[in-house]
Formats: sequence, structure tokens, C-alpha cells
Amino acid sequence: MTIDEVDIFYLSLPQVRDIGDGSQDMALVRVRAGGFTGWGECEASPLPTIAAMVAPPSHSACHGVLDSVLGAEVGSVDDVAVLARTVRERGLDLLQTPHAWSGVEIALWDLLGAAAGAPAWALLGAGEPQPRRPYASQLFGDDPHQTWEKAAAVAASGFTAAKFGWGPYGRGSVAADADQVHAAREGLGPDLDLLVDAGTVFGEDVEAAAKRIPALAEAGVVWLEEPFVAGALSAHAELARRSGPVRLAGGEGASGFHLARQLIDHGGLGYIQVDTGRIGGIGPAAEVARYAAARGVQFVNHTFTSHLALAASLVPYAALPGDLLCEYPVEPSPLARDLTRTHLLPGADGLVRLTDAPGLGVELDLDAVRPYLRQMEIVMDGTVLYRTPELVP
Amino acid sequence: MTIDEVDIFYLSLPQVRDIGDGSQDMALVRVRAGGFTGWGECEASPLPTIAAMVAPPSHSACHGVLDSVLGAEVGSVDDVAVLARTVRERGLDLLQTPHAWSGVEIALWDLLGAAAGAPAWALLGAGEPQPRRPYASQLFGDDPHQTWEKAAAVAASGFTAAKFGWGPYGRGSVAADADQVHAAREGLGPDLDLLVDAGTVFGEDVEAAAKRIPALAEAGVVWLEEPFVAGALSAHAELARRSGPVRLAGGEGASGFHLARQLIDHGGLGYIQVDTGRIGGIGPAAEVARYAAARGVQFVNHTFTSHLALAASLVPYAALPGDLLCEYPVEPSPLARDLTRTHLLPGADGLVRLTDAPGLGVELDLDAVRPYLRQMEIVMDGTVLYRTPELVP
Repeated sequence: MTIDEVDIFYLSLPQVRDIGDGSQDMALVRVRAGGFTGWGECEASPLPTIAAMVAPPSHSACHGVLDSVLGAEVGSVDDVAVLARTVRERGLDLLQTPHAWSGVEIALWDLLGAAAGAPAWALLGAGEPQPRRPYASQLFGDDPHQTWEKAAAVAASGFTAAKFGWGPYGRGSVAADADQVHAAREGLGPDLDLLVDAGTVFGEDVEAAAKRIPALAEAGVVWLEEPFVAGALSAHAELARRSGPVRLAGGEGASGFHLARQLIDHGGLGYIQVDTGRIGGIGPAAEVARYAAARGVQFVNHTFTSHLALAASLVPYAALPGDLLCEYPVEPSPLARDLTRTHLLPGADGLVRLTDAPGLGVELDLDAVRPYLRQMEIVMDGTVLYRTPELVP
Repeated sequence: MTIDEVDIFYLSLPQVRDIGDGSQDMALVRVRAGGFTGWGECEASPLPTIAAMVAPPSHSACHGVLDSVLGAEVGSVDDVAVLARTVRERGLDLLQTPHAWSGVEIALWDLLGAAAGAPAWALLGAGEPQPRRPYASQLFGDDPHQTWEKAAAVAASGFTAAKFGWGPYGRGSVAADADQVHAAREGLGPDLDLLVDAGTVFGEDVEAAAKRIPALAEAGVVWLEEPFVAGALSAHAELARRSGPVRLAGGEGASGFHLARQLIDHGGLGYIQVDTGRIGGIGPAAEVARYAAARGVQFVNHTFTSHLALAASLVPYAALPGDLLCEYPVEPSPLARDLTRTHLLPGADGLVRLTDAPGLGVELDLDAVRPYLRQMEIVMDGTVLYRTPELVP
């Protein structure tokens, strides 16, 4: 099948707030080939991602993504991996490339699944997909009481694990952070898994992060996520040596297999978190899942947006056995919530499952999100490089 | 001083060819603060870089660069470092951020130098800048004979070192590559330093790269540059163990201090090459220079474009003593050549020196490059997010 069309859409809430909620806008990708259509979501700033798609070439290693993708032949996920290498080589010096390509890659898996009448997890050669235990992923409250209320609500709703992150954490005193963590534990009760996300707030300051460990350990926190910027491997490794029962988690910023691998090889992580919408799609995410499993590091999806993104994020480790967690957004924006008619709701046993439907198995509701579509135009010397296409199936 | 204005300009040759020459287009940045003006060049795809400057916010860790920069106060290069951290934190999830910020950062050093009447190297706290031995940086010929001609021309022009890269290297047989390398050596004569740039052509295939080592060693090649993609640390380390007298070089793709540090810590490099126009500017490049020097790894600039970029690339290691090489573009496009009236020409001793003039010490010739200016417009829901500003001093 020849890739005939690749379109990207910028959607966003009328008002984007300066908070950690990454579901306030969306870069949605539609691919058509051989009469089939696939959809994917980039976890990326939409405007630079559109620009990375349509960028005029700068030189042989700096092409826009569409330059390499349009007209390419794809009949299998192996062809997608070959195309991924072409995109990487020809887009090497265009930094935004992996974020843009991720949406195309995911859409290609969706499309190939539609063409084959097979779910994406089957294309990966996985056996029956394993159910995953969702953790409720949300922001810390502005104060401990608000965090307590959120935690109590999560516990009441049947989740067995919850993560709190961003907000005030790491921005005030050690005592204030301890109060937040203890409030979360109290609200959850003693039995639920509690995870904490520092959102890279400590930069690479190991001492600042280490001071938070005792409260985290007291509260029985399973992992401390992203204490540092992703590249600070030695800071991660040093904190990992000092964090006792609290394991480190990270990797959501990885925009390629190697960046995730480095955190495993040299960062001392217990959990590697991969966003298929950033790392280059399902292929490299699955490569990380295999690499991590072989080294005793747990793979976890990173997802904070729609159930299209959630489905794509579960495929790479669908076949891994065990009681593995999955990130599950519980406070999605109306945009992220309404993009799909299909929602991967936890079953009676509290676990989340991929479906047997072809591709990503998620039906979109384009009518519901059309009000969020931004009309964009990029013009160069009078020539239109990009104009928002019609948002139709 | 308050940063009042930050403007970015897209310039390019009328026809961009699909070759390794990165000087065919340009993302030029102008910053104004306190009545002073500074200029910098991003080593980046211009359209996505413009988009990264003006991108509407997606969430608290995904802001366009200008959101963080406009209105900020800067009185010293320490303030620039603080601003760099703000830009990084608020632009964490916008992958193109470091490429865009690099041009702003460099322009701020130029501006602060202008305000203080001091050269940028003095702002770094460096003593007298050391002269650097330029290597002529160019592409391999299409065949060995063309490479031989290029090498002979370089030798005749007085350079003591030359690098050949990209083109057919690594894309044909081991024997064909050997012919290219031997042709370069023959053309240069026995005494000049020969460097080879593989342009990441081997991906992470250590065996493919290792097969090229004997010919490189026979030809007395000083370094093999970028055999692999930048993140493939263990591939670098393994080849380094097997490359004998041929040292590995890399790092041009580093879009932050940590990525360069990882190549030093875990990649077995002999030379770390940093592009100030990608890594976040002069500050982080200087941090790499210090880090490398303390570990016996040689810092080298990466520069393939204008003498504005060349000057900025020499500042970070200006104070390091020793017979250190610098990359020196010898085949710049008319755009890259004509951007500056000032050219850092090798002296009678063949060495290149930074000047004592304030800031980057480079005078621009905007009239000469105005014909290359692209008229861009980015519109969102009828609102102009970007329109090419007037290219004036």
C-alpha cells in the first residue's frame, strides 16, 4: 500500500491553563493508504509538530517528516520500522522529528490493523494481551487537604493504585512535600499503591531529592518519578543507590529507544515509562519493553491524554506477563475524553484490557471534538505549506 | 535590561540541494534589550524553530520559547543561565526548544558584550583566547578522484588538517570507503591531519564500522566522527575499544549538556564536538568544554555555516590551552559567507583567533543576505502568530 495522505490537526481547549495537565491540546494525525485510514496522536506541542511535518528541507539530514513518508510503501509493521529509519536519517537535524513521526507511526499501526482485520497487539506478534492494573494519574492538590480529598475519591472509585505529581511538589519545603505525601497516603488508605511524580523539579540536585526520600519511604511510596531532568543519568544512579525501598521511575521524555535504554543502563531505574506518542511510536516503545524486561526493569506506559493515546501506549507491553501497572488518566479534558467513543474502562476486576477490534480498536468521535479544531495556516513566499484540512473520518 | 524584542528570520538559498551542506539555509535571531542588539544563529531547521518560538502553550511544561524570554531581565551571563533553566523547564515537552533557544542565548551573549564593551570570551571569565588550528571541513567527493582533488586543494591552501565526510562514505563497500580515505590521504600528503566523518551512517552496527577501521588506521586518520547515532552509547564504547589509534569523535547532535556528557562518560570518545547553535548556546557548550578537559577528552567546535556561528562556537573553549583543532567551513554557501563582513581568517601562522571586539565581534552585512530572506506567515484562527519582521540592524 502506498501512503497517499498524511494530515495533522491541531485541537485545543479555548483556554489553556498553565498547569501540568497535558490533555488541554492535541496533535492528531490521520494517514490514508490503500483505501484504509489510521489515526494516531502525537504527545507534542501541535504547532512545532505541524511545522516539522511540512518543513522545507535544509540539507540531506534535515527534511520534514512528510518528505520521507508520502509515497512510501507499507505492507507490514516491518516496513514501518524501515520507514522509521529513513525518517530518522533524513530528519536527524530536525529536533522535533520524533514527536511528529510518533503520530504517523501509531496511525500506520492502526491502518495496518484495519487492513489486516487484526488488532495492533497481534501485529506485534504478541499472544493474548495481558490485562493491566491502572493507576489513577493526577496532579497534587494545591494543599494537602485537597490532595487528601482527591486521594479519598480515587480510593472510593475502586482504583488500587494512584499517582500524584507536579503542582507544588518540590517547589516548597521538605516538610511541605512530606505533608502532601502523607495526605495522599491517608486519603488512599494503607493498602493502595502510592506513586509520586516530581516532574523533574530537582533538575540534577541529588541532595534536594534525597531529602524527600524519608517521607516517601514512610508513606510506602512505590516509585519516585522524574526527580531529575531525563539526561542526568548519574544523578539518577546516585539517588537510586540512596532511595532504599522507593524505586525511581522515568523515561517519559525519551524521544528514541536509546534515551530510554540509557536510563536503564546507567540511571538505576526500577520503572521505565515510555510515551508512544513521543518515542517514535509503537515500534521503539516495544523495543524498550523487551529491553527492560530482559533486565528486570518494569515497563510502564506514559499517557495523560485520550484513549486513542492510551490504547497505543498499552500495545508495546501487551504481551508482558505479570501484575504490571498502567498509567490511566482520570482527569482528562473534555477534548481528550470526547475524542473517542470507545473508552478502555476498567473491568469488574479493576483491570484494563485492549480489545480484539482491528488496529488500535478505538472508535473516534470527530463530531464531538470538531469545535476544538484550530484553523492554522503556514505560508512561505505566498505558497501555502499547511492549511488545516477537513476533520472527517 | 529587559528583553524587549526577539525576532527570528528564515533565510535560504533559492534552491536547497539534497546534500550534506548545512549552510544552505539559516535561522537567524535578533534580540534587543536596554537599547542594545545582539545576533545569534540557530543550527536548526528554520520553520520548526520559528514555530517553537511562537508556539501557543500546551501546558505548564510546554511553552513556546518567547513566552519565557520576552520581558525577562538580563544583566549578566549568570542571568542568561537562570533564564536558560526557565526556558528548559517551561519548554520541557517541546522537543525543538534547545535548537530555538540556542540562537537567543548566543544573541544574548552578543548583546551583553555590546553593552559591556567586552568580547564574549571575556564574559566567560576566560583569559586571553587561545588560537585554534582550523581543519578544513568539507564533504567527500562523489568519487575518490574528486576527493583527491579536494584534498590537494586544501593542502595547497595552507591548512594543516582536513576533514572529509558524508557523501558516499559508508553507503557502498568497505573497499570503496577505503579508496575514498586513501585518496584523501594522498591528496593531503603525509603530514596533514586527516579526519573522517561518517555522518551516523552505521546506525548502531558496530561490525560495519569496525570493518572500516583498518583503512582509517593505515591512512593515519586522527578521528572517526559519528559512526553511530548519537544515543548509541554502548556501540560507541565498543568501537572505541576496537579502533586502536583512530579515536572516536561525536556530539554535534547534543541538544543539551547531559547528552554530550553521556558520550564522554559512557561512549569512549576522544573528541567531543559541540554545536553552540544546538546545545543551548555558549553557556552549556562551555560547561561541556570544562567537563571534557577535566577528563582528558578534547573539545572541538562543530560549525558548518556562517562566521557568526563560527565565532559563537569558538567562545566556549577559548581559554583552553594547547594545540586544539577547530572546525572551519571551507565551502560555505553564498548565504553563510555573505552574512558577515567580518571573517575569522587564519593568520600568517595558519591559526584562527577570536577578536577583541565586543560581543561575538562579528559585523553583519544584512543588505547582502536580504535577497535570501523568506517571507513567512503563521496564522491561527485568524490571528497572526508570526510574520517575517524587517531584516534591519
